[in-house]
Amino acid sequence: MESTKKTIIVFSGDLDKALAAFIIANGAAAMGDEVTMFFTFWGLNILRRQDAPSHQKGFLQGMFGGMMPRGSTRLGLSKMNFGGMGAGMMRKVMRQEHVASLEELIQIARDQGVKMIACTMSMDVLGFREDELIDGLEFAGVATYLGEADEANVNLFI
Amino acid sequence: MESTKKTIIVFSGDLDKALAAFIIANGAAAMGDEVTMFFTFWGLNILRRQDAPSHQKGFLQGMFGGMMPRGSTRLGLSKMNFGGMGAGMMRKVMRQEHVASLEELIQIARDQGVKMIACTMSMDVLGFREDELIDGLEFAGVATYLGEADEANVNLFI
Amino acid sequence: MESTKKTIIVFSGDLDKALAAFIIANGAAAMGDEVTMFFTFWGLNILRRQDAPSHQKGFLQGMFGGMMPRGSTRLGLSKMNFGGMGAGMMRKVMRQEHVASLEELIQIARDQGVKMIACTMSMDVLGFREDELIDGLEFAGVATYLGEADEANVNLFI
Repeated sequence: MESTKKTIIVFSGDLDKALAAFIIANGAAAMGDEVTMFFTFWGLNILRRQDAPSHQKGFLQGMFGGMMPRGSTRLGLSKMNFGGMGAGMMRKVMRQEHVASLEELIQIARDQGVKMIACTMSMDVLGFREDELIDGLEFAGVATYLGEADEANVNLFI
Repeated sequence: MESTKKTIIVFSGDLDKALAAFIIANGAAAMGDEVTMFFTFWGLNILRRQDAPSHQKGFLQGMFGGMMPRGSTRLGLSKMNFGGMGAGMMRKVMRQEHVASLEELIQIARDQGVKMIACTMSMDVLGFREDELIDGLEFAGVATYLGEADEANVNLFI
Repeated sequence: MESTKKTIIVFSGDLDKALAAFIIANGAAAMGDEVTMFFTFWGLNILRRQDAPSHQKGFLQGMFGGMMPRGSTRLGLSKMNFGGMGAGMMRKVMRQEHVASLEELIQIARDQGVKMIACTMSMDVLGFREDELIDGLEFAGVATYLGEADEANVNLFI
């Protein structure tokens, strides 16, 4: 039988692209597919915990960490964000239309067994420790991603 | 025989990315491949009709509709748009180089039988009705996309 | 045996996305995969030589050429660029973490035999001649890309 595994590289940390990534991942998992999401660069911001312990960091990594959105609830839109107002509008209209929020989508992904991998090289560059990210992640690099992608029949970069 | 079907998720509503999506889709269709384009989020703006009937909409969806570009001719570039001047430059230089315009590319896609699906969940969120979008579309959700992608050998997210 | 060939369309000319593209390409090549990168639209800026001979160009193409970053060292980040300061920070922190620079990654890609194709249609539109781009490229259009993608098991659009 043909593989129906899916992989998604989540490079973007924008609310709208994160929503798209999780909607696809959850849709595939609901249809019985194995799904791996590989979070890299700005995509790591989706996984930051708001109550992360503070660490001593290098100057540049401290600056990146301070300026980037701290977790899924702080993300902006890739378009029409207007300083966060667009993201708020998007969240509100999604509630009106009974679409799950990003936080609910992340929980559904976990409940469905979607494998979420945080890219360790990006974590080093942006200065994130494991305990600054949400629970239930795996930590690995590009070789692991490529191994997963080789087993999949749909591979997206978002 | 191996599948040579292609799917493209058109998430972006930028002129340059829309051009890339249709050039790939039309190239594949010209080579005999079945092609499915799945328009979601900002990508729906590519499909808006300029002469759309006006509907009573909720406040937020009215705002989204009013602020987003109304159809393929109003799209901006993802880079160097300069309030639309960049998009105009891109269109002009493409004419000079005898490259088809986005509107021509959309028509070629239809003539070649490229399947264009508008994402119904995004339509609900952004407040688009079927008669506000161009003719010849199908309307479906992520499960339909995933079914198409499972049959394809190339799947892109643009 | 199954194909493990990979293709990457490099549409973006942002430093962060270029890094992601080359890290994936080099990772796959290091694992023995054949890899083809297809540079189109803004992605061509990654390949510009800084010491390019000057050519007489049309007005619009001259403007595009003058405003777009001239080569890999001049690229900005897709997020938090702050007029180039973000790109400088990213480069500095990558050095600290002993991650290869974009220029080193491009050299590694060449050394590993990654096939780099510049999209000729985009070159026409943006006004680039072959001698304005770095050595070791092939020049072809979307049909060539599609032929490569048909042989691959992972195809990404970045």
